[in-house]
Amino acid sequence: MSKLDDIVSLCKRRGFIFPGSDVYGGMSGTWDFGPLGVMTKKKIMDVWWNYFVESRDDMYGIDAAIIMNPKTWVASGHVATFADPLVECKECKSRFRADKIADGISESVTTEEFLATHTKCPTCGKENWGPIRKFNMMFSTHVGAVLPEDVSENPELAEKNTAYLRPETAQGIFTNYKNVIDTIYPSIPFGLCQQGKAFRNEISPRDFILRDRECSQMEIEYFVAPDTWEENFEKMRLLQHDFLENVIGLKPENIHELDVPKEDRAHYSKRTIDFMYDYPNGEEELMGLAYRTDFDLSNIQRESGKSMEYRDKNTGESFIPHVIEPSIGVERLFLAVLSNAYTEDEVNGEKRVVLKLPENLAPYRFCVSPLLKNKPELVAKAKEVYELLRKKYVYVTWDDSGNIGKRYRKQDEIGTPKCVVIDFDTLNDDTVTVRDRDTTKQKRVKISKL
Amino acid sequence: MSKLDDIVSLCKRRGFIFPGSDVYGGMSGTWDFGPLGVMTKKKIMDVWWNYFVESRDDMYGIDAAIIMNPKTWVASGHVATFADPLVECKECKSRFRADKIADGISESVTTEEFLATHTKCPTCGKENWGPIRKFNMMFSTHVGAVLPEDVSENPELAEKNTAYLRPETAQGIFTNYKNVIDTIYPSIPFGLCQQGKAFRNEISPRDFILRDRECSQMEIEYFVAPDTWEENFEKMRLLQHDFLENVIGLKPENIHELDVPKEDRAHYSKRTIDFMYDYPNGEEELMGLAYRTDFDLSNIQRESGKSMEYRDKNTGESFIPHVIEPSIGVERLFLAVLSNAYTEDEVNGEKRVVLKLPENLAPYRFCVSPLLKNKPELVAKAKEVYELLRKKYVYVTWDDSGNIGKRYRKQDEIGTPKCVVIDFDTLNDDTVTVRDRDTTKQKRVKISKL
Repeated sequence: MSKLDDIVSLCKRRGFIFPGSDVYGGMSGTWDFGPLGVMTKKKIMDVWWNYFVESRDDMYGIDAAIIMNPKTWVASGHVATFADPLVECKECKSRFRADKIADGISESVTTEEFLATHTKCPTCGKENWGPIRKFNMMFSTHVGAVLPEDVSENPELAEKNTAYLRPETAQGIFTNYKNVIDTIYPSIPFGLCQQGKAFRNEISPRDFILRDRECSQMEIEYFVAPDTWEENFEKMRLLQHDFLENVIGLKPENIHELDVPKEDRAHYSKRTIDFMYDYPNGEEELMGLAYRTDFDLSNIQRESGKSMEYRDKNTGESFIPHVIEPSIGVERLFLAVLSNAYTEDEVNGEKRVVLKLPENLAPYRFCVSPLLKNKPELVAKAKEVYELLRKKYVYVTWDDSGNIGKRYRKQDEIGTPKCVVIDFDTLNDDTVTVRDRDTTKQKRVKISKL
Repeated sequence: MSKLDDIVSLCKRRGFIFPGSDVYGGMSGTWDFGPLGVMTKKKIMDVWWNYFVESRDDMYGIDAAIIMNPKTWVASGHVATFADPLVECKECKSRFRADKIADGISESVTTEEFLATHTKCPTCGKENWGPIRKFNMMFSTHVGAVLPEDVSENPELAEKNTAYLRPETAQGIFTNYKNVIDTIYPSIPFGLCQQGKAFRNEISPRDFILRDRECSQMEIEYFVAPDTWEENFEKMRLLQHDFLENVIGLKPENIHELDVPKEDRAHYSKRTIDFMYDYPNGEEELMGLAYRTDFDLSNIQRESGKSMEYRDKNTGESFIPHVIEPSIGVERLFLAVLSNAYTEDEVNGEKRVVLKLPENLAPYRFCVSPLLKNKPELVAKAKEVYELLRKKYVYVTWDDSGNIGKRYRKQDEIGTPKCVVIDFDTLNDDTVTVRDRDTTKQKRVKISKL
């Protein structure tokens, strides 16, 4: 088993992440967060919100709808360009993303280029391909009173009412920019921040939660005066490092900046740095930092006919702001956190699996147990300690199952930093055993000092 | 203007809630939360999560994908029954929800019954109707490599890959029940709780955020032994009141319980209490409390072939748990909070609009201002107080625009409970003026006592 397989298995075994719709055999490209996963996911999202929004004076939140006016995706370029090259095997009708089954070709591969690779169908082994077709990755739906039969009988009505699930949260920010500057009058530079779901109809989802069809994004659009983009880009770059390393606890040596060359950048970007992370299966994008220029606001101005200009209160100057965008997927960050934490070591000659999660992201900070569960006086005392810690730290769990060694194993696997055990000495001197997850060392501590 | 119009106008004017995709002329049935709205929405969701999940030992979180295996909606009954009666005017082709344009008919109206009402078309005034058709309110989409042309050319492929946006978060809980009991072994009674988006393709969205196409739900499925459903139903009923009245601050006299008669209950429910709220436009459902029996788990067991039985560790007994479900929409609760808070009164002979939000839900708890913005020593001192309060309370805003009277008006409108003003006396004796939103009374307070 690869390390990624070990992590997937631990996630399922311990209630962090289950395959989506598991009970019905799954739903490809979707994942559900279980009780422990929700706790850590929520903490990741909360520390991001606190770091980038609540603790700063230049950032504001936005929470836009997932289904937006379809003009959004015309203006943004997604209707025209958000597509993967799809190829179909004429023999067995299997469909693939062309650039994923043939070596050395890009997303903009032509039919001729693909055929020249003489790729065999991964399903049936034959080589009899249809043409490359552009497959738009936006999920589409119909909004309003469109019946299934309208699609064939009344195609104009169906077409007119087609809408998309947003493929990025960014446009929910850009479309609200005008209302924000007209209501709360922020001074440039300022950022609008959003957390929310985005959807991409990947032809072949893979790599656990790294390439899923439904993900939670955390995005900032930071609006700046055009001639200050470089200094603000640098400011945002440093902030991302500080957040990833000092708040999330990722090791700096596992994060690599990739200055994306012009030909690989998205159509809207004049500079992009991909923050790559050493995932178990190799280096993969963790987040992106893009200089989007005034591409989006100018498109909206053209498409909507409304001015996107910002008027500087001090200089009186008017201009369309330029934008620096740090964008991160919660699931990618979650997997980086898990990869960073997942450790196998040996304790007393036995293999141990331990999640060395930072205290602020672990589902529970403490586990409280009575040494023996059939001694009412121990259980009562342990309950007392549990209630005390619950009040103070909230994230405290109770465990009286199996023997103490098994409990430690379990708490190690779910990343609980400290196990507090109540034994007979506790009844005499009000001290407890505190066992440390990472060192497995035990200490006697006064209850009042916990 | 009605009170609801006043609230909608305030929400837009002050950056709480904007029409979705406003810059493109909107997107019917969607709403975007602006900077202030996000703050209150997040607080509403956080107090709910804290009250029902984090502070209890019998509740756990779930965060399931929005796109689920379509079998989910067959088993749940949504494919067959989640439909509104749609009628089309043959003259002008306008479509309507039949039970909304004719008086005295229900959702299950037949074509004959509808024609007998002799309703005129609200658009063209004629009376020439097509038959009543069932319009399923689930948004559908295609998952995987389905091209637009497949819908007509390859309908089997399109059909096979059809999926829905979840119309309720509840099924994301039921489908995970089995994985949860197999991984964290909760003892009955226990609840699984979820916050997340749900989508309903309303034919005619209306009443601001009360009947939108995309809403955030907060749902609990509380699993109980079958013969204990009544006591647990009562326990959940009391908890809802405590939450709504003591955490959210709604007035008890505005909440009315409606014991839903058998013929109006959802197909899965043996008892339902709708919590009705006195909204500005009249009494409307705020939340529901339903006894869902073992309807959902039994359906899943049948559809998936997997046992949904729970085995009681103490008695050894096995059974399919029954379920009590408190379900609330964040937007409905948000509007109740706004309706509860929106007040017009008179101060010094002038009309004043004030949002009397409870402290825990107001976007900001304090606003800090220098009396005059052109006195650097006042501004410097005010910044000092601002930083001090920011550290302690996080939710603190700065305002040095216009004159002090205008600032008070603005802070009243966004619901800031206290305005702290730094004047020349502050420089001598370290006291500030604290002005109370609700009474408009001012007090001198030592900075150290804030």
